[in-house]
Amino acid sequence: MPKIRASDLAGKLGCKVIGDGGAVITGAASIEKAGKGDLTFFASAKFRKALSTTAASAIVSREDPGRGDIAVILSENPAYDFARALWILYPAKGREPSISPLAAVHEESMISEFATVMPFCCVERGVTVDKNAVIYPGVYLGEGVHVGENTILYPSVTVYHGCRIGKNVIIHAGAVIGGDGFGFARHGGGYLKIPQIGNVVIEDDVEIGCNATVDRAALGETRIKRGTKLDNLVQVGHNVEIGEDCIIASQSGISGSVKIGDWVMLGGQTGVADHLEIDSGIMVGAKSGIPWSLSAKKSTGWSGIPALPHKKWLRTAVSMEKIPDMLKKINRLEEELEKLKSEKGG
Amino acid sequence: MPKIRASDLAGKLGCKVIGDGGAVITGAASIEKAGKGDLTFFASAKFRKALSTTAASAIVSREDPGRGDIAVILSENPAYDFARALWILYPAKGREPSISPLAAVHEESMISEFATVMPFCCVERGVTVDKNAVIYPGVYLGEGVHVGENTILYPSVTVYHGCRIGKNVIIHAGAVIGGDGFGFARHGGGYLKIPQIGNVVIEDDVEIGCNATVDRAALGETRIKRGTKLDNLVQVGHNVEIGEDCIIASQSGISGSVKIGDWVMLGGQTGVADHLEIDSGIMVGAKSGIPWSLSAKKSTGWSGIPALPHKKWLRTAVSMEKIPDMLKKINRLEEELEKLKSEKGG
Amino acid sequence: MPKIRASDLAGKLGCKVIGDGGAVITGAASIEKAGKGDLTFFASAKFRKALSTTAASAIVSREDPGRGDIAVILSENPAYDFARALWILYPAKGREPSISPLAAVHEESMISEFATVMPFCCVERGVTVDKNAVIYPGVYLGEGVHVGENTILYPSVTVYHGCRIGKNVIIHAGAVIGGDGFGFARHGGGYLKIPQIGNVVIEDDVEIGCNATVDRAALGETRIKRGTKLDNLVQVGHNVEIGEDCIIASQSGISGSVKIGDWVMLGGQTGVADHLEIDSGIMVGAKSGIPWSLSAKKSTGWSGIPALPHKKWLRTAVSMEKIPDMLKKINRLEEELEKLKSEKGG
Repeated sequence: MPKIRASDLAGKLGCKVIGDGGAVITGAASIEKAGKGDLTFFASAKFRKALSTTAASAIVSREDPGRGDIAVILSENPAYDFARALWILYPAKGREPSISPLAAVHEESMISEFATVMPFCCVERGVTVDKNAVIYPGVYLGEGVHVGENTILYPSVTVYHGCRIGKNVIIHAGAVIGGDGFGFARHGGGYLKIPQIGNVVIEDDVEIGCNATVDRAALGETRIKRGTKLDNLVQVGHNVEIGEDCIIASQSGISGSVKIGDWVMLGGQTGVADHLEIDSGIMVGAKSGIPWSLSAKKSTGWSGIPALPHKKWLRTAVSMEKIPDMLKKINRLEEELEKLKSEKGG
Repeated sequence: MPKIRASDLAGKLGCKVIGDGGAVITGAASIEKAGKGDLTFFASAKFRKALSTTAASAIVSREDPGRGDIAVILSENPAYDFARALWILYPAKGREPSISPLAAVHEESMISEFATVMPFCCVERGVTVDKNAVIYPGVYLGEGVHVGENTILYPSVTVYHGCRIGKNVIIHAGAVIGGDGFGFARHGGGYLKIPQIGNVVIEDDVEIGCNATVDRAALGETRIKRGTKLDNLVQVGHNVEIGEDCIIASQSGISGSVKIGDWVMLGGQTGVADHLEIDSGIMVGAKSGIPWSLSAKKSTGWSGIPALPHKKWLRTAVSMEKIPDMLKKINRLEEELEKLKSEKGG
Repeated sequence: MPKIRASDLAGKLGCKVIGDGGAVITGAASIEKAGKGDLTFFASAKFRKALSTTAASAIVSREDPGRGDIAVILSENPAYDFARALWILYPAKGREPSISPLAAVHEESMISEFATVMPFCCVERGVTVDKNAVIYPGVYLGEGVHVGENTILYPSVTVYHGCRIGKNVIIHAGAVIGGDGFGFARHGGGYLKIPQIGNVVIEDDVEIGCNATVDRAALGETRIKRGTKLDNLVQVGHNVEIGEDCIIASQSGISGSVKIGDWVMLGGQTGVADHLEIDSGIMVGAKSGIPWSLSAKKSTGWSGIPALPHKKWLRTAVSMEKIPDMLKKINRLEEELEKLKSEKGG
């Protein structure tokens, strides 16, 4: 359990504190559920009411709720400074560096003496694992794989041969990096599997969710660039390139050879057809289907199946339920017009 | 192979048997594929024809097909009594309780002497596993995890630290419980990971499908309540609460902080946006996209992207293909009206 | 690194070579990225320009680009012959047959002396593994499972008891074969799990993607026929039958008891409702929702939610964004017609 004075925490954050700076913080909770000892934060107008009633002992906030009974840690970016505070209250636990005698580690691999390899990992020939990396149980590292400093691979992650994982990367349980891309050449008698001789490169600071899958390239590489985050169950096809600091929400699927710029956000369950380009800075709404390249010049927000500029899609989406009525009205209009015409003609 | 007289089986089920009560049951099959020795059931009008032709030796049915050649086990709820019969014919095989010497079990954990821990499981400090629990190979139980009585964790399940699994729970192979929620605080230079310091609570009688993922809470808990069933590849975001006896079909995704009531059914590939509420008793059609909270007062059935009351959606869905024709008709109406107006004006 | 003369490679492929047949091939790359020593191929008009500028040393092509500086391997089916060439340049690496002493293999199982079982695999009673099969680390083979010749099971694959895997099958990391179908009988107090007593049969030459899930049958079998390919994260429900040489793209979900013919293609994220039939030869566009059986007589291409014949859907999809305008026009038409009528009446 953490224990720190609000004023000390504010000092570490470089923030000003007002109100009861001596309040002792022993936990953290949402603004609605927080109680005595908890730190919380206020970042959304939706919770304005809770700002004056929360039972938290301290709050990170952009504004002063005018309460003397709690500590208010002032911040221009409360969600960010609250996250920083959580890292102070709940520092990541290190693991004692060691290679478990219950792991199967090829003698021709290079594991830093400051790395951790837990039981039942299988490390093949030519693998390198840099310092402070933590490899949880049941991980498989194929021949020639590289794992950078401070990177964490959670249980049962598989990294196929030749893939390269950067520094400070987090790959959650069950994710698979470098499985064969889905490529088959049709011929008279069926399909011939196309050898997938490329690899996957995961750059620094990337996070990949549980049971996500990132396929190796057919030729060349599949690349996920610095700082990008993939949520659980995301699929990335072969030869895809995803830029920096992208956010790809759960169950989205990115088909082969797609090129995504920087700072792109894809909502959950989005699908992107193959060989498209998505410009930097574009946001795509959840459950969209993207059959064409998206240009930021045309719109920075896209939604729908097929994807339209977000505002156009919003208008379309709300009017869809009116189609049956429209049909009726059109039929009545046709009848009335016919009547008018015949009366006129008659 | 099971072997039981139809009359004896009916007795165990508390059902009346008519026809050939002496028929010997040695297997089970669908009404269309059943042969001599098989038990089958009749629960859907779709198979009425098969009722009089099935080669099964015994049938669980609400009605009497008037056949003397087979045993008819009368039931008010044939699907349910057939399932009960299967449990009698094919009782779950117990496993000899034991902790495999090939598992890595922390000395400061508490495994019941009546539990089974198979090879290559990794059990961390402070874990408790109650009696009759079965932990298949390759499972990872993080620090402080609790696994209740009779619970089965199939191969390669990962349960992150601090999560609590109730009694009689089934978690299928590859599912991940308690991975980090997808939360990042944006700042000038990129994203800061928000520590996910909450946990996941899985209540009694829950079943979770293969490769499904349930994220731990950012703060507080993610909770799946008693009796709820998640199908394969379902995603449950951080801080979600799912009520009792819900059925969540395959590949559905539930975003962070959603609150779902009891007896809710979500069709496959449904997506629910974050922070919404879905009232108890609501049924959602497959592949729906839910961008707003669903009120049972407004409708108990919802479908579509975005989700509409089911009947309204049905009307909309069937009329969508008429849009191109509607467009043509509107253009023609405009022309004709212009013509009428100009004739009138002229 | 491969090293072969273009003329020798062409000879092995049974193709004619023109241009610089003596060019030495040491690698392979896409037509745009290829450099000296690389083999590439030309199969899509999209890359016609690159045909005359590529720096590759050799190209598999249907037509002669008229360049004397590179080797042109003539082929009626360039993608196919390029794939064949890759198999020659990069032959699959065999593994030394062996059963790892770090695997847990039941004494009453039959592993061919020519098969490979890697560390941390768990092989239960009655399993048979035929020659040249390769079982990667962390795989679980339940009681009575059969694995055919030359089949590869990548890390952390789970095959539940009683399932049968054919020859030359590839199952990628984390895939789960034979988990329980999603079946529950509702009764007054909740749901009773319906025992899933069937199995899964995977025929020869099938490939199954990373973290895909194929459920065992409730009664009888779930079957995936010869040559069919499932991409990552695909879900196949209980009692499904998929025909030969089908291509099921990533994140598609096939509900229980669906019957799919031969040579069917499903685009990514497609969903198929339960108990439907899809005729042989049908192609379904990505992200489609299929609520009814698809007849090849009606159309061989289908798309949309709900799925329509592809051409009809295309017309519908492009016209959807016009709905808001249509609404406005209809309202104006109604007003004008009213005005005309009242003028006429007045």
